[in-house]
Parts: sequence; structure tokens; C-alpha cells
Amino acid sequence: MSTLNNQCKLAARPEGLVKDTDFEFVSEPCPAAEEGQFVVRVDYLSIDPAMRTWMNAGRSYVPPVQIGEVMRALAIGTVVESSHPGFALGDVVSGMFGVQNFAVSDGAGVTKVDTAAAPATAYLSTLGISGLTAYFGLLDVGMPEPGQTVLISGAAGSVGSVVGRIAKIKGCRVIGIAGGEEKCRWLVDEVGFDAAIDYRGGDLHAQLKTHAPDGVDVFFDNVGGATLEAALNRLARGARVVLCGAVSQYNDKPSGPANYMQLLVARASMTGFVIFDYARRYPEGIAQLSAWLAEGRLRSDEHIVSGQVSDFPDTLRKVFKGENTGKMILAFDRL
Amino acid sequence: MSTLNNQCKLAARPEGLVKDTDFEFVSEPCPAAEEGQFVVRVDYLSIDPAMRTWMNAGRSYVPPVQIGEVMRALAIGTVVESSHPGFALGDVVSGMFGVQNFAVSDGAGVTKVDTAAAPATAYLSTLGISGLTAYFGLLDVGMPEPGQTVLISGAAGSVGSVVGRIAKIKGCRVIGIAGGEEKCRWLVDEVGFDAAIDYRGGDLHAQLKTHAPDGVDVFFDNVGGATLEAALNRLARGARVVLCGAVSQYNDKPSGPANYMQLLVARASMTGFVIFDYARRYPEGIAQLSAWLAEGRLRSDEHIVSGQVSDFPDTLRKVFKGENTGKMILAFDRL
Repeated sequence: MSTLNNQCKLAARPEGLVKDTDFEFVSEPCPAAEEGQFVVRVDYLSIDPAMRTWMNAGRSYVPPVQIGEVMRALAIGTVVESSHPGFALGDVVSGMFGVQNFAVSDGAGVTKVDTAAAPATAYLSTLGISGLTAYFGLLDVGMPEPGQTVLISGAAGSVGSVVGRIAKIKGCRVIGIAGGEEKCRWLVDEVGFDAAIDYRGGDLHAQLKTHAPDGVDVFFDNVGGATLEAALNRLARGARVVLCGAVSQYNDKPSGPANYMQLLVARASMTGFVIFDYARRYPEGIAQLSAWLAEGRLRSDEHIVSGQVSDFPDTLRKVFKGENTGKMILAFDRL
Repeated sequence: MSTLNNQCKLAARPEGLVKDTDFEFVSEPCPAAEEGQFVVRVDYLSIDPAMRTWMNAGRSYVPPVQIGEVMRALAIGTVVESSHPGFALGDVVSGMFGVQNFAVSDGAGVTKVDTAAAPATAYLSTLGISGLTAYFGLLDVGMPEPGQTVLISGAAGSVGSVVGRIAKIKGCRVIGIAGGEEKCRWLVDEVGFDAAIDYRGGDLHAQLKTHAPDGVDVFFDNVGGATLEAALNRLARGARVVLCGAVSQYNDKPSGPANYMQLLVARASMTGFVIFDYARRYPEGIAQLSAWLAEGRLRSDEHIVSGQVSDFPDTLRKVFKGENTGKMILAFDRL
């Protein structure tokens, strides 16, 4: 292959929202596969708020991306060259291929996906990390009971909408918090939430009181900040707060919930989890999510943007601006 | 009886540390017992940081003390008049008798205590709410395993020292945080902590790193604020944070832990609890605590101040200034 491999490398640790100049865009010859390796053409990139945290130095749940390294990204691609007995030309695969057109792999952490069962992009959304995060986070950490009230922040995002759909399957009353009237309408009319609150539309505390008069039993938090504070004030006795993300905090100096002692008032718990810890149970999660998809009880909510490697920073900014509904995916145009 | 009953009533909702002028001191004739009632002479008052939170308006785990009401306080007293079949003259009793010399009761929420088994003041400390808080908070919420590291803030306070003693009985490595070298020496030399950190003595983060190199499995927090933030940065994988109190927050505008997402990094939980929820299990707790006391494996750490009803505000201020070692008790001089 004579095609060039365009790559996006981290050039600086960003302050605030990523800028194009935080990255360096380089082109190098397409890599070749040595014995035991294969080359993947990257087709779809998963664009996630958590990526912003991977760019920071310091202790987190994964090592930081180093300056000069190709930006880390989960992706779906197609095997275009193989000297690996387990991967054949044309196989569609999922893995941490990074923000680039081609990646070389020895198969570690790479999964083949079945595009006969679901479209490739579903393996980045409902059948991928987003769906698994929703599944294990809600059911294992949140432990909702039928009839209980589940509140979700970032409800129109990649994880939030799946959490809502699963909570409905489990017989819960589901309230979403999202930005803008359009997303709120979508949550109620299309996704089936019982209520949706536009956090841009006035007093969050008052709106929560209206929609959760008896309190919130499970709060699945993707946002943090003022949203977390408002939710803590509405916790029902014995509530569980699932800390999945804190998208409001990734670009700014973080601030903690001043009313965290509401956890004591409500005899509630707040628990952080990282989906990678559930790796051994992914097959269980994927089997259940696939079954629900096949039965039509779940749907994959995807927001696919077409572009190039160089569009990565702007696509990530779009996520922080809340421009996506469902899972944000960057689909690489074939050059 | 012609004795006067001196009372301390809440006169204003305090801002910051309580002032004498937040209270009104009145004397009225000693109350009489009607049929089914008895009169208690209050001997010992439990002086607790939580009392400050009871003076605030707004949602908490107990209703606020109303302006004009006798200040709520747990106390030990002696029955001096009785028209109640269950309580006889001379009985020593524990109950929410308030900051006053005499209280009338119908027996609701009142427990007789056995001064043959332990001194009366032990029923405000190790065999009282402080000891029960330590027992259920550590064992039921913190769930320490032998060999794990237990960190305690407010370690020289009424609850903290008992938590440390119980954690040692359970085979844990125990680290305390307290204010001042003298208290730290006391924790290590007298109480048997493995290490004690003086939070006034320099960089808390660095000291925690030294004393808990492998992280903290259980953090029993009585303090909040900067202490909670420092502890969150040192959590071991799967750690449990027990929210018992937040003494650093009661007199100021509260602030949340900016690094609360360390709960995610550590896959940890932070859980609030209120001892009153364990009321049905108090007998179990008291039986175990009494047995440990009798075996000499526990001791009652008490800081008894002699005074009058009018000394209540100053005695409470002493607790916030950290002047007590162990349980602060105001013993009323016999007039």
C-alpha cells in the first residue's frame, strides 16, 4: 500500500477546551505488518468526553497520553493486511487504534465484531463501551428497583441515553437532564424518558423538585458540577449516586459538591466505577444488550460526523458543546 | 422542690462559631411530674460538634432546634421525682434532656443506665452515641478487613478515638489525623494508633503518603474540607469513605471536595450514615462495646469540664477549637 497514514499526535497538554494547536498532524507511510501483526484501516472513531482527561498529566484511571504520542481513541476498523493467524483481510475489528488512518496491531485488546448482527457503529455505541458502561454502571452500581426514580445527567449523550433505555426496561421512572429544548423533546418523545429537564432553562433545583417530588433513588452522573449539587439535594433515603463522568469539570478547574453532606442526610452513597474493571463480564453485557436490540427494546443512538483525522479536535469540542445527540462518532471519509 | 431550673434556649441562628448572645439564659421554677411523668436532674451533658448543625434552619437528618426552644442535648441524669411506674427515684437515665438543670419526661427515648457496670459518663462516650457511631460506622459502613489501613480524621475526638480502638481490635493498621503534637502523641502512645498526623504540622498530602504508602482502605471522616480532599487522593482501590461528620464545615460556608472524582479513579464509595437508623441494633453494639471495656480492650476517653448551664456555649466552642481529647462532657456543678 502506498497510502499515507495521517496521524493526530498530542503536542501539548491542553488548558480548557482543546485547541487545534494542542495537536500535531503528521503524515507518514502506511505501516506494514510484521509476523504476528496486522494492519487496520480505521473507519470510525469513538469521540468521548473522557478523552479530554487522558490528555492531562497525573493520576487517573488510565495512564495519560504522552506528548508526541498518537492521540488515544477507541475505534472500529477493517483489517487490510495480515500476518496474524487470528485476523483475516476484511475482518471488522474494535480496539484502541488511535486518531489515525491506519494502525498496526498484534491483536492485544482487539475484538472482531459481527456486522451481520448489527451495524459496525453499534459496536462503538450500544454494543460498545458506552452501552457496557450504561449496563454495568446502572445495574451493578446503581441497583435500581422497579418503580424507583432514576435521574440521569448528560442524558442525551452516548452513555446517558442507553442508561435511560435500560432503566425503562427495568420498570423505573426515568428523568433526564440535558441541554436544550430539542434534546429534551427527543428524550421524552423518541427515547421514552418520563421527563426531561433542560438545565439551560432555569432553576434546576425547582425543576427537579417538580419532576422528582419523592426524591431520586439512583442518580447516574455524567456531568458533575452544579448538576451534581442539584441532584444531591433531591436524593431519596438510601439513594445511590453512580459517578460515571464529570463532563462539566474536564475543561475547568474542578469544583466539588459543596453539599456533599446531603449523602449523610439521605443515608446515600456515591460510588465511582471504571468500565474496564468489568472486562471479564463484557460477554454477559453484550449478550443482553444485543438481545434487547434484536427485540427492539433498545436502539442505538448515534451522531455520526464525516471528516478527516484533522477534524478530531473540532469533533471533540462539539461533544463538550453538547452538539451531539447519542454517541458521537467521527467517520473517516475514504480518501 | 423549690430549686430553680436554669435553661439555655436558642435565641438566634448562629453565624459561624456560636456566641453567648445566640442563646438566652432563663430560670424558671423546677417542673413537676404529672401522672405518667418523671423529673430528671441533669448531671452530664454530651457536647458534640453536630449540635451546631441542629441550630441551622433547613433540611438535615433531624429537625432544627426552634428559636426559643431549650437547646437540644443528649444527657445523663438522675430521677428526682416520679409519677411513672417504670422510673424510680435515683434511677440514672440517658435521654435528650436538653441544656437545662431539670427535664420532665414521659419516658420516650429515655434509657436506664447501669452505673454498676460502668461510670455514668461512659454512657455518653464509649457506651453511648459516640461509641455506637464508631461501632456501626466503622464495621457496617467501612467494612474493614484485617490488615487493611484505616484512616480517621478528628481522631482524638469522641468518635474518632473509639473508631481507632475498634479498628485495632479488628487487626487493622490505624492512622489518625488530629490537631497538635500533644494529641498525636496521645493517639500513638496511649490509644495505640500505628501513626498520627498533625494536620497543623505541614503538608497533609505528603504526610499521608509517608504513613499510608499503599493507600487507605477505609477513611472514617469526621472533619471534611481539606482533610477529606487529602484523603481522597490517597484512596486504595475499592476504598470506603465513611461520612460521619464534617466539623470543619459547620461554622463556615461549606465547600465540597474538588477532587471527588478520585472516587472514580479508586473505584471507591463515599457513604453517609446516621446512627439513629441503627436504634434497633443498639443492644448488639452496647453488648460488644461493654464486653471490650470489661476485657480492657477498649477504654473510655473523656474530657469532663465542670460548669453551669451558662457554660454551654463556651464548652461547645472548645470542641470546635479542638481543646478536647476524647468525649467532651459538661458536668453540672451541684448548686
